[in-house]
Amino acid sequence: MPTNFGDRLVAAIRKKNVPACVGLDPLIDRLPQAVLDAHGIGGGAVDSEAAADALRSYGREVIACIAPHVPAIKINIAFFERYHAAGVAAYLELVECARDAGLVVIGDVKRADIGHTTAQYAQALLADLPEGHAGKGAAPDAVTVNPYFGIDGIAPFIEIAREQGRGLFVLVQTSNASADEIQGLELSAGGTVCQQVGRVVQGWATGDGLVGSEGYSAVGAVVSPRDLESTDVIRELMPNCIFLVPGFGAQGRTADEVAKCFKSDGSGAIVTSSRGVIYAYANDRYSAESSDWRQCVEKACGHLVDDIRRVTGY
Amino acid sequence: MPTNFGDRLVAAIRKKNVPACVGLDPLIDRLPQAVLDAHGIGGGAVDSEAAADALRSYGREVIACIAPHVPAIKINIAFFERYHAAGVAAYLELVECARDAGLVVIGDVKRADIGHTTAQYAQALLADLPEGHAGKGAAPDAVTVNPYFGIDGIAPFIEIAREQGRGLFVLVQTSNASADEIQGLELSAGGTVCQQVGRVVQGWATGDGLVGSEGYSAVGAVVSPRDLESTDVIRELMPNCIFLVPGFGAQGRTADEVAKCFKSDGSGAIVTSSRGVIYAYANDRYSAESSDWRQCVEKACGHLVDDIRRVTGY
Repeated sequence: MPTNFGDRLVAAIRKKNVPACVGLDPLIDRLPQAVLDAHGIGGGAVDSEAAADALRSYGREVIACIAPHVPAIKINIAFFERYHAAGVAAYLELVECARDAGLVVIGDVKRADIGHTTAQYAQALLADLPEGHAGKGAAPDAVTVNPYFGIDGIAPFIEIAREQGRGLFVLVQTSNASADEIQGLELSAGGTVCQQVGRVVQGWATGDGLVGSEGYSAVGAVVSPRDLESTDVIRELMPNCIFLVPGFGAQGRTADEVAKCFKSDGSGAIVTSSRGVIYAYANDRYSAESSDWRQCVEKACGHLVDDIRRVTGY
Repeated sequence: MPTNFGDRLVAAIRKKNVPACVGLDPLIDRLPQAVLDAHGIGGGAVDSEAAADALRSYGREVIACIAPHVPAIKINIAFFERYHAAGVAAYLELVECARDAGLVVIGDVKRADIGHTTAQYAQALLADLPEGHAGKGAAPDAVTVNPYFGIDGIAPFIEIAREQGRGLFVLVQTSNASADEIQGLELSAGGTVCQQVGRVVQGWATGDGLVGSEGYSAVGAVVSPRDLESTDVIRELMPNCIFLVPGFGAQGRTADEVAKCFKSDGSGAIVTSSRGVIYAYANDRYSAESSDWRQCVEKACGHLVDDIRRVTGY
């Protein structure tokens, strides 16, 4: 697998003909009733093992539903860490399951620390598991990371990305309402904090051996088109970075906004949507047509693909 | 335990008469040979379960060595996550062990995400474990968090801090060499990014019900005195925040630098040191005197206490 991650992601998008990613970030109390019943989860306190088992079963089914339609999945570890050791084991198994299903797998972990420490996160969350590792699980193809420490917090991830054909997406402009509290601060040299982060990340992304034959680096960026003008600036500043674009769907980003994250040739970004797909069975639009929650998820995934094709001109 | 965390930390510092914290961030290959031997860890690949068991035994002994001397311990989860589910279980057990030993326990987790997600991290890493939770473990008294998302990424932690008498330390000025790449950017309104983060965190820290009777909030800050001038500014900007001060010892911060993090009355900060204490058995200064690694750790902890008392005038 030591092909460049940028090349692999571009190829996966081309193969499925849509720059779409499904986000898997499931809350226990929103799982299908059938899954909860099968794991004996009712009202009241939830046992960690039972919760992790339910997330695992549910995740496997979601992966099967979406794998034919989209090139990538983003699994957010927070929803698994919620159940401590059992949850972490479930996360790793789902990473492996998604890779086996042919998806590009992004571990949404948003880590960073000083170098000596971040090296541990990088080994744990992005590297191939060592020989003799007890239990199942495989590392994802890429992870998300936080830029606040500068390059020290990111370098061990980049090292593994380079050596093992993996990737990372550095947070640049996030989708949440309070993002501008820090990211939107105006700099005396011009522009904002997140634009300067973008400039810095473009520098990291064009380091030795990171840019693939398609012109995209193994180092990408998380960019929400929350601010249209800023998104234009960032797209311009980061020609070698693939943008992982959150906020489409439940978080309210529109088609026009999302389109800003792509280059004029339609490349350079992949759009991710979670709640609209993974909870489709709770949406009348789908549940009126089928009582099988899997069919609802697969149908919603098909609609996500249609929507993103329309937005991006694929 | 629903006393204010600021009050609890101040009381713990007073009781031990030193604002010192030992950092527990152990690398397997630097553990005492006796611990490695006891867990069958030699050269070559390390099984996750064996590694987690070794970290657990070692951590328990370190906690016993330091608990009589210092008020607090900071356990960095990265070094445990390295061994996935087994490591996370060991982390939680050590948090509980340290609390049982009477230490204020800081979980060094450096998390943040958008609100919907960070709520999961906050539940997992700071809240009381739910009834019926399988396995041992308890939440720490406080955790570290990352400010890049603004208040959205932090609010669920603050909520738990308020309700359960817990605390958090928001990254403001970190100790690593590349910190200024982002944190040091100059703002058009004056000052730098990390100073503005400090100003914003002071605002969060003085929210409803967060400041205790000692004048310190349950919301503190990670401030390394890497830049002396900036540290003065930040100390001034954040009167209600206790600073968790990394970098003393292995990371090279001097006594004069560390002293900048305290107010003139000697309050307002706690200094943390890891490698100088937890690997003391590999230091000739200690190993020449004792072949028992625990005695080396305890002696080094005593020296850390002496050093910090001297620096801070306790």
